[in-house]
Amino acid sequence: MKKTLYIFNNGELRRKDNSLYFETDGQRKFIPVEDTNDIFIFGEVDVTKRFLEFASQKEICIHYFNHYGYYVGSFYPREHLNSGHVILKQAEHYLDQQKRLHLARLFVRGSIGQMRRVVKYYASRVKSGQEQLTERIGRLDHHLDILPQQNSVEELMAVEGHAREAYYSTFDYIIGDDDFRFVKRSQRPPLNRLNALISFGNSLCYTIALSEIYKTYLDPRIGYLHATNFRRFSLNLDLAEIFKPIFVDRLIFYLLNKKMLTKDDFDRQTGGILLSDSGKRTFVAEMDKRLKTTVSHRHLGRSVSYRRLMRLELYKIQKHILGEKEYEPYQALW
Amino acid sequence: MKKTLYIFNNGELRRKDNSLYFETDGQRKFIPVEDTNDIFIFGEVDVTKRFLEFASQKEICIHYFNHYGYYVGSFYPREHLNSGHVILKQAEHYLDQQKRLHLARLFVRGSIGQMRRVVKYYASRVKSGQEQLTERIGRLDHHLDILPQQNSVEELMAVEGHAREAYYSTFDYIIGDDDFRFVKRSQRPPLNRLNALISFGNSLCYTIALSEIYKTYLDPRIGYLHATNFRRFSLNLDLAEIFKPIFVDRLIFYLLNKKMLTKDDFDRQTGGILLSDSGKRTFVAEMDKRLKTTVSHRHLGRSVSYRRLMRLELYKIQKHILGEKEYEPYQALW
Repeated sequence: MKKTLYIFNNGELRRKDNSLYFETDGQRKFIPVEDTNDIFIFGEVDVTKRFLEFASQKEICIHYFNHYGYYVGSFYPREHLNSGHVILKQAEHYLDQQKRLHLARLFVRGSIGQMRRVVKYYASRVKSGQEQLTERIGRLDHHLDILPQQNSVEELMAVEGHAREAYYSTFDYIIGDDDFRFVKRSQRPPLNRLNALISFGNSLCYTIALSEIYKTYLDPRIGYLHATNFRRFSLNLDLAEIFKPIFVDRLIFYLLNKKMLTKDDFDRQTGGILLSDSGKRTFVAEMDKRLKTTVSHRHLGRSVSYRRLMRLELYKIQKHILGEKEYEPYQALW
Repeated sequence: MKKTLYIFNNGELRRKDNSLYFETDGQRKFIPVEDTNDIFIFGEVDVTKRFLEFASQKEICIHYFNHYGYYVGSFYPREHLNSGHVILKQAEHYLDQQKRLHLARLFVRGSIGQMRRVVKYYASRVKSGQEQLTERIGRLDHHLDILPQQNSVEELMAVEGHAREAYYSTFDYIIGDDDFRFVKRSQRPPLNRLNALISFGNSLCYTIALSEIYKTYLDPRIGYLHATNFRRFSLNLDLAEIFKPIFVDRLIFYLLNKKMLTKDDFDRQTGGILLSDSGKRTFVAEMDKRLKTTVSHRHLGRSVSYRRLMRLELYKIQKHILGEKEYEPYQALW
């Protein structure tokens, strides 16, 4: 398998005869052209046309990300891995009701599985509410059990919704702070501080998922659990379901437990409550740390970052739609 | 209508705050960002990432051509018009054999129809060969007639190929210049001057089609007559079939008839013959004029530019795949 090259330094991509190199601080790093699939540019990098010509011959795509890590655009060689093939397969898995249902069910299973892990982790750690948490685990198990009997995406969505209700009802026990009561899920705008945190964290999670999707051949517009429709990405929403419990919810518990966020970090606005700017900064900085945290990976036999875990999940989904290997959603080990 | 910028000089594309400029020989030429649709690069041009970031925001595509005038690749900004719905429908029309065949047939019909118009236009104007041209019209009519009986994309491709042969065999009569004999179609490299012109014009046409597709909800990766596969844009090839006769071939006749290009505008290179730099400049400038030329539009009841015609064609294809209106390929009026 050809490799992906990531460039974080500033410099220039140049060509000398039939070799390509990256020049940074006067140093030349040669690029193994025959072994390179694509190049991801994060630094401030200039590219010569002669470089692109040779990259094009070697069918190397170049993807640009801006300073904030958002995808900017791509240089596509005349002939390249676009890939029309992957998108057709992705569409086929959406258009075929059974295939779509199968994938949607896997996303819900992954999502509830992760919620269960979070609750199980805290069940032996909470000061009060152990009994309630154990009861919620039972409920989540029940929802997992009935997934195979759901025969439409709407039914799956309903089960996911009920599971999420049970899951959220553990938050007050886990957080144990009267300044951050859950009450009920409220959005646009969130009506209390805890909901403000969940909303903010989820939207970050959706965006990170989108960036990761751009680094694969998958098209973010075609999701399975979340319906594909006009003007919206949906595959990132599917993917985020599996990662919200570890990326967002556990981060919220951590931030509140460490008192890194308190009620002073919130503003009352337009009928709702939102994180203040300084609160957002704290949240984002800790989220970023969290994404870089490495965890040991069962199958790879090595440690990978949380963010990398998301990418690996996408590769698994890609393999699934290409018919290479049945998708199994990620399950945290702890 | 936004403009296309053609760069033949060597230099650098850079950004300063919210403006973009091209620096050549120490001179800065500013690029009107709000008024620029795409940039075609023929010279040796370096591009900074900061330039691409802003170009992406302004939805400007950048297309690269090598020294020989061959298309190398494109910088494609992050998809801005997102419609998962359209792409699903587009995929559905590919995955369903009958739907794909139907669209592929329409593209071939449109393509042969345009060839026929060109031959018919010249049939009453050529100095010699009227009889031959009339005979070719008969052949093209025959190919149009047998389209409904073709039951695979491969068969349609074969009919298109035969029609094109008949069409090209009229060129010597239309051009009537011994310096520009057709002989037979040769590519990569073209083996004579006329073939060099056709190759250069066609690759411009494919690239313009790509830029126009980018302005719609359609995905350039999924074509119908040209198979969607791992490595290539294909919808632009389908679309170009309909426009090559008017955008490219008639332009060639015009340039040669007016002696705007002569045999001195060609270089013998690497076993083939290619347009010289000055020849390319002349061709591109006249192509650009041609794209801006307005023609009266049958249904709109107003004049639209040739380039706009291409966009309108894409809207019609979009309506077709959305099931709103059956696609009817464009037919020139003259």
